[in-house]
Amino acid sequence: MIKIHGGDIYTYNKKVIDFSANISPLGVTENIISAIEKSLCEISNYPDVEYRELREAIAEREKVSSESIICGNGAAEIIFNLVQALKPKKVLFIFPSFAEYEQAVNTINAKKRYYYLSEKNNFNLTEDILGFIDNTIDLMFICNPNNPTGTVIKKELLLKIADKCKACNSILLIDECFMDFVYDCNNYSMVNNINSYNNIMILKAFTKLYAIPGLRLGYGISNSGKLVEKIYNCRQPWNVSVVAQAAGIAALRELNLPQKVREYVKTEKDYIMREFSELNIKFFDSKANYILFKANKELDKELLRHNILIRNCSNYKGLKYGYFRIAVKNHADNKKLIDSIKQVMRGNNNG
Amino acid sequence: MIKIHGGDIYTYNKKVIDFSANISPLGVTENIISAIEKSLCEISNYPDVEYRELREAIAEREKVSSESIICGNGAAEIIFNLVQALKPKKVLFIFPSFAEYEQAVNTINAKKRYYYLSEKNNFNLTEDILGFIDNTIDLMFICNPNNPTGTVIKKELLLKIADKCKACNSILLIDECFMDFVYDCNNYSMVNNINSYNNIMILKAFTKLYAIPGLRLGYGISNSGKLVEKIYNCRQPWNVSVVAQAAGIAALRELNLPQKVREYVKTEKDYIMREFSELNIKFFDSKANYILFKANKELDKELLRHNILIRNCSNYKGLKYGYFRIAVKNHADNKKLIDSIKQVMRGNNNG
Repeated sequence: MIKIHGGDIYTYNKKVIDFSANISPLGVTENIISAIEKSLCEISNYPDVEYRELREAIAEREKVSSESIICGNGAAEIIFNLVQALKPKKVLFIFPSFAEYEQAVNTINAKKRYYYLSEKNNFNLTEDILGFIDNTIDLMFICNPNNPTGTVIKKELLLKIADKCKACNSILLIDECFMDFVYDCNNYSMVNNINSYNNIMILKAFTKLYAIPGLRLGYGISNSGKLVEKIYNCRQPWNVSVVAQAAGIAALRELNLPQKVREYVKTEKDYIMREFSELNIKFFDSKANYILFKANKELDKELLRHNILIRNCSNYKGLKYGYFRIAVKNHADNKKLIDSIKQVMRGNNNG
Repeated sequence: MIKIHGGDIYTYNKKVIDFSANISPLGVTENIISAIEKSLCEISNYPDVEYRELREAIAEREKVSSESIICGNGAAEIIFNLVQALKPKKVLFIFPSFAEYEQAVNTINAKKRYYYLSEKNNFNLTEDILGFIDNTIDLMFICNPNNPTGTVIKKELLLKIADKCKACNSILLIDECFMDFVYDCNNYSMVNNINSYNNIMILKAFTKLYAIPGLRLGYGISNSGKLVEKIYNCRQPWNVSVVAQAAGIAALRELNLPQKVREYVKTEKDYIMREFSELNIKFFDSKANYILFKANKELDKELLRHNILIRNCSNYKGLKYGYFRIAVKNHADNKKLIDSIKQVMRGNNNG
């Protein structure tokens, strides 16, 4: 069975190196762990239902007002809450992309329109997307950088999309959960443009950059107080645990970490891409901390024999068998991956 | 502003004794804290999206199959997911009761029917509820023991309700989140009857009994695999954190704790009720770990001056000003509460 998500290390009866989940290779910091441990003396209290301290800290970091912020038990929860709050009649999806957008929309009764990224364009979004946005679209999802392709959208095009959505009264969700891994993220993030739009929600995650996916913490930013309130009312109360709130506040104090992660990822990504080029593996240029590539359709199974778990992308809408995604991990792991791929390829050539 | 929930200790600029949240007076155990600490080395992994180990442990404890179990980021999440999964056209509520049932239903477009418990019957549910259940009701909520009244429903009546719901194709959610605090809980819980019904979901929480509300963990039990799957598909993935899964598994190993808590609560509840009787305070007989009572409508404000936070129940549908709920806490705290109430009453008599 091909899993709908990466990171499922629980299905295998052995220790695997998990390249299927796109988590920071620098891992979680000691300060975050200490903050969590310290918070444990508070777990017999309910969490602050309005997570005031965390919200203030995020607002300060993102240079927006705290009323613009909504937090979730992982960014995924906010996707579900947004859909339930808006109950859009028609939704525009770009594929291939993160499966949860459609999963969330499947919980309501909505029409769906699909735009497929073309491999000929290396899965880059092009201007023809604008033709897909009209007054019938209530909600549109954009993943930037896109998962699993790692492509980013040029700011110029993204602003055109945002404007068209605004003109058509469409809410635009821009998922920037992997934006902090993009080396020149300031050229692509829409956070600085948020004040010009009342129809945008930007999604961000602590999960990936701070390597705490086991804890679950994400947030949304919107200039529309009405939209934030609507989503706020659709969520269960106390959705962000005491522990996650403490971890989030501590994470935001790690001021140097994001740049450190970006530099590490860039170096390692360059290494992997160089090796892939030498191996004649077709990969797609990624701005994120993961790489989509093409290979023999059994590669995931073969690598599992080497205790390496990679993401088989054949169940992404818009992809077929033979597409895989790997996270950029630490150098030792990345080297093990490359070595194992070499062995597998050698084996196949011999076979 | 009267808060919709208890447990909001974050609004006050001072340390308060929190009688507004109904958490076990024995607090969280060291074993649970150790299990959480141990789990921190796993937080850079995604949680098991199917929380298999936890599910097995709950199933074993409840003597049901693991397919009958669904877990949530707190029991409250399951209420929201259930509503979103079923999208009932008409819902039957009993008031006064936990506000989240209606909050969850407010996220969809459903008709609502209300049954009001009568103070004349000391807020006990009576047979006339059966007349409110018919083919138009898709979903009914029962809180047993009821929050905030502490009343339980006689098993005989509950079976009649369950049968009527079954005959009318109505889903019945029985919230037993406080059942583990009931001294003779086996006489009231429907868990042992679950196999006779395909239309019931029972809700339970780790939050209260194991004193981990800051962590969020609850579960639902249903004999209908179809219902469990429906809810499962409406939730976001990874909704139960690595930390909560570890805490839940550790909590279920605390085999002697539930009975210990029940005995402690009984003794302390008896103490409070004796004192209330002597003070001529009208209270309602409670089987749970909290007590509803009537007093001067400013009592909560007056007790806050004594650094005691109690639950003002005037915003419960079906109650008015002058109803308050207190949790049964440890003896020192309970004594402080009684002493403070005495002082407040003396002050009022003098004033």
